[in-house]
Formats: sequence, structure tokens, C-alpha cells
Amino acid sequence: MGSTEDLDYPQILFQYTNGFLVSKVLFTACELGVFDLLLESGEPLSSDAIAAHLGTSPIGMERLLDVCVGLKLLAVEVTREGAYYRNTEISNLYLTKSSPKSQYHIMMYYSNTVYLCWHYLTDAVREGRNQYERAFGILPKDPFGAMYRSEEEMLKFLAGQNSIWSICGRDVLVAFDLSTFKHIYDLGGGGGALAQECISVYPNSTVTIYDLPKVVQVAKERFVPSEERRITFHEGDFFKDSIPEADLYILSKILHDWDDDKCKQLLAKVHKACTPGGAVLLVESLLNDDKSGPLETQLYSMNMLVQTEGKERTPAEYSNLLQAAGFTEIQVQRTGKLYDAILGRK
Amino acid sequence: MGSTEDLDYPQILFQYTNGFLVSKVLFTACELGVFDLLLESGEPLSSDAIAAHLGTSPIGMERLLDVCVGLKLLAVEVTREGAYYRNTEISNLYLTKSSPKSQYHIMMYYSNTVYLCWHYLTDAVREGRNQYERAFGILPKDPFGAMYRSEEEMLKFLAGQNSIWSICGRDVLVAFDLSTFKHIYDLGGGGGALAQECISVYPNSTVTIYDLPKVVQVAKERFVPSEERRITFHEGDFFKDSIPEADLYILSKILHDWDDDKCKQLLAKVHKACTPGGAVLLVESLLNDDKSGPLETQLYSMNMLVQTEGKERTPAEYSNLLQAAGFTEIQVQRTGKLYDAILGRK
Repeated sequence: MGSTEDLDYPQILFQYTNGFLVSKVLFTACELGVFDLLLESGEPLSSDAIAAHLGTSPIGMERLLDVCVGLKLLAVEVTREGAYYRNTEISNLYLTKSSPKSQYHIMMYYSNTVYLCWHYLTDAVREGRNQYERAFGILPKDPFGAMYRSEEEMLKFLAGQNSIWSICGRDVLVAFDLSTFKHIYDLGGGGGALAQECISVYPNSTVTIYDLPKVVQVAKERFVPSEERRITFHEGDFFKDSIPEADLYILSKILHDWDDDKCKQLLAKVHKACTPGGAVLLVESLLNDDKSGPLETQLYSMNMLVQTEGKERTPAEYSNLLQAAGFTEIQVQRTGKLYDAILGRK
Repeated sequence: MGSTEDLDYPQILFQYTNGFLVSKVLFTACELGVFDLLLESGEPLSSDAIAAHLGTSPIGMERLLDVCVGLKLLAVEVTREGAYYRNTEISNLYLTKSSPKSQYHIMMYYSNTVYLCWHYLTDAVREGRNQYERAFGILPKDPFGAMYRSEEEMLKFLAGQNSIWSICGRDVLVAFDLSTFKHIYDLGGGGGALAQECISVYPNSTVTIYDLPKVVQVAKERFVPSEERRITFHEGDFFKDSIPEADLYILSKILHDWDDDKCKQLLAKVHKACTPGGAVLLVESLLNDDKSGPLETQLYSMNMLVQTEGKERTPAEYSNLLQAAGFTEIQVQRTGKLYDAILGRK
């Protein structure tokens, strides 16, 4: 940046401009099942074979596959009989539906919901509020009314969040030694992937997932094995209903959905319920102290404008919220990945 | 890619996933006039001042500016009074409306038209055809019926194409010595930026812009200075109407809009009209011979599926089209930028 050469030909602007093309190629290859088919087939396939299996046009599939090669999501071998495509390691691991680390669901959530909300980013910045009305024709009372506007949408969102914890869950849970906390509440624990990670890292703990009744219903039916006795459920709205006593409360990607007032209100309620000597663990993507980065977190903060009533915050901002609610001995641990951890004690 | 570290934490997938967020931040900052205001003000401004000037919410503007800093499109100075934002060199040069190299119009075309068409990429791949119907509710006879569906849309498209030639025009025109060609037809010359570049590089040439009557109308009114006597106009549809004689025909980003049959039909007509010793210059983004890249061109080829009836092609594919029409001595020059040049002689 800034060199004469870059100024003559602003490659970086083309890269930014083409960003949405790259995103959509990735999302569409996932949606059509390209990576799943290539995993199952066990051998490289021609473009025509892939198109035939997946019921797409041959010309569309060939172009999609070639861009995936350019993005290193696929590899190609050109033989005398033609081009044969196979998954790269990263695609097998993260882009197939069957992989334990599959990011398929979060990709689908981004592609079908977030992408369309962001079409109205200019309106979001003008108005300072989320864009569900323009994107989906709904005027919800709160963001979760919009995000959970149908069971299908709720499922996509919960499955998407679960994908994230398959990559980032362990790091935020080992950022502090939480082994002294026996009974843990995961407030807004959704699909339960973080709760499952938690009982795996801390086998002596039990985790109660506290979420809206319809979320708990789906979590029980679809995501958390019923034989897992260390995970229980509590149905409620933690803004309106009471919060039971526990040793540790996890608020993972909760505060970033809400403005400071609602965060303080929620944290005060958590502080009151918390056993003496207990704690609260915030799991969030942390901005630098001067908000100069990380870029991903800045983008997520923008997304909070487009989709919620919240924002991403700096460590100091979270500390202030925790202190206002009565928590002390606040510690911050950056993980180097997308999500970080902040611990406050009662 | 492929190292154990990358496999544990697939940074590249997050980068691809976030691509559309980056694109929209760039587009929105352009659309709201952030870069124009900061150029005009001549001094760094606070987020609140920018929001007030541009009539946006303060919270939305602050987040937008901070992401622009993360993207190096803005710089920030933090003083005791607060944060003050200013343009980087690249933004002054390419993202302000008043700059001769402004990319503002192509950004707006990408943001408002291409972005929404690409929401339906999965359908485009399934069906093997463009997505104007889903994106804009119109079922056009041909892509230009859709692209020129209103005067406003046509203007955005023509202005956008002009932006591209302010960066890439000179390179494609000096790729070959065209000084021997006196009378040049720019078929589908649109807003005329390439024609203007052409008479600047080759001052003894005259260029006739051949385009649809409504395009010529707008080019005369909005883009080409009426005192420029070396540029003239010809109204017509080069598929249906006759093509007059000339020494050189430029087809700049024309063939990529159409399938092989239509390309051959057009090139045959051009060959017939061409003076003996004359030539045709194709200006296109060239795929590698084995279609393994460049990534930008692969993405553009995908876009041709989403928006047109064409595709990007390899040098061999263009050579075949030219030869089929009777052109000989075909030469290919890659420029290292987005668009390349191919010359065929009669």
C-alpha cells in the first residue's frame, strides 16, 4: 500500500471489490454439495460427472469448479481424457457436511441470511439499525424475533453457531482454568456445541443450557444427545425470567447482540444469581484497545449493526460492563482465533 | 495452505467467507461520499462530523470508518480530543468521485446490480443461465435488455465501464502498435472512455463509437466532449445492422458477453467489412491456457454466467474464433493487468 506501483494499479481495491464473488463461490460449492460428492466418490471426478450427479448445468459447474481450483478449495488433474477434480485437505475437513469440523451450516447462514442483510449496509449506516425489514420484509420487536422467524431459519442459525464452536470452542474454554466451577449455566447456549465442548474439557462439570423454549426444543431434538446426563436445559428468556443460581455463567456471543443498557441489566441479574466465589465468562471477538483491528472483529461489529442491536467491544468496554454489574478481578485472554475470553468474579 | 497449522485453523476460509463484508464496506463508504468529504475538507474529521455532514447515524458511521481503517482505505489519528479520519492516497486517487481515475461508478454498479445477481449464484449454476429474473424480476430477451432496463441503470453501467478504462485502457491500446490504422470503429464502445484513450495514444486516428441508439445518445450527452472531432458516432445494433468499413475494429469486452455462435457471426461480419490489411483488436480478460487462473478472470467468467450469455476465454479459444472468421496472423499480448489484447489481421 502506498508505493508508487500500488498507486498505479490498485490491486487491493480489485481484491476488495471481488470479495463477494469469492464468498458466493465458496457458499455455492458448499450448497450444491460439491465437496460432499468428491469426498464420497473417493476418486477425482470430471466436471460433467459432478454436474450430472448434482443436477446442475455442465457449463455452470465447470466454471464453479475452475474458480474453486483458483481458490485452492479444489485441485485438478488434467489428463488426456480431460480434467478431474478432487477436494483439497481443507475442503475435506471443513466444507463437507459429514466432517466433525464442518463449516457447512455457518456458510449457509452467511449465504442466505447475512449476505442479503448486507445488501442494505448503506441503509444500516444511515439509519443506525438492523435491516431485516428491507432484506426479509419483517419488522421484528427484537433481532431474535427476526433470526428465529421460522423453525428453518432458527435451525440454520443454531447449526451455524455450532460449526463455529467446533473450531473455536476449546480455545475459549481453556483460556482460564474453569475446573473449580461445578455447575455452569450457558446463557443463550443455543445448539449446545459449546456446552458439549465444556463437559469434554471439564469432565466434572455439569452445564445447563438456558435458552428460549423453542431453541431448547430444537437443541434437545437435533443437537445434544439425550444420553448426555451432564448437559441439562432450562427454558426461559433471560431478560424477562429468573436466572437460577450457578457457579459459572457463560455468555458466549450474547453481549455483542445488545446495547450497553441491556448488557448491564443482564449482567446485574447474573451477578445477583451467582454463588459467592462464582464467576462469569464472556466469550466474544475482542476489538483492539484503540479499535484499530482486528479486521474480522471490525467487520463483525459492522454486522452487529446490520443484524442486531449490539456491537463488538474492546476489553476495556467489557470490563466496564462487568464492573458496573459488580464483578471484580476481571481478566482478559486473547486466543489468537476469532473468539476471546473474559472472566469476572463475584 | 495444506500445512498442519492452516488445517487446524482455516484462516483462508474466514477470509473467503468475509469477502462480501469487505466488498460492501468499500461500496457503502463510496456511496455515502466518505472519501469525497474527506478530500474536500482538506483536514482530518471526527466520526461525528462526518456523520453529520453525510446525514448518517453516528454509530453506523463510526463503525464504517473503523473498518475502513482496518482495510487501509482510511487512516486515523487519535488525539486527546478523539479520533480524526483522513483518506489514504489510494482512496484520494480511486475512490473520490472527482478523480480522473475514480472507480466510484464501477463500485456502484457492483454494489447495486452485480451483488444482487450473485445472491442467486447457486441457481445460475443449476440452470446454466443469468439471474436477472430472480434478482430484478425481469425476463429480458437478451442481457443488454436487462442491463439497460432503465436509463439510470444504463448510465451506471456505462460510467462503470468508463472507470475501468481510466486504469486499464492505455495498456491494452499500447499492447500492439496500432498507429498504422487511421479509421477505427469501437464496436459497443459505450461511454467512450476507451475511444478517448485511443485518440490520446494515437493522435492521428479517428474513432467511431458504434453502439445502440440510446447508448450513443447518452455517450454524446454525458461522456464525450462535443468539441472532440476525432470521435464520431454510429447508431445501430451490430448483430442486426450493417457494419461500415474501417481499418481497425476494437471489440472491447464484447465477445465475453456472447456464446461461440454469436461471436463467430459477429466476427465474420467484421471480417467482411474490414479493409484489406486491416485488423480486429479484442480486449478481454484472458484465462490461462489450462484455465487454472488468473483468479480474477475465473471470477469474471462466473459473472458472465450470472449476468450474460458468454464467458471468459483462453487465448486459444479467441484465436479459434478469429480464425473461423477468416482473420490471420493472430497475436496475443497479456498486459499483467485485468484486460489483455489480441490482434487478428485480414
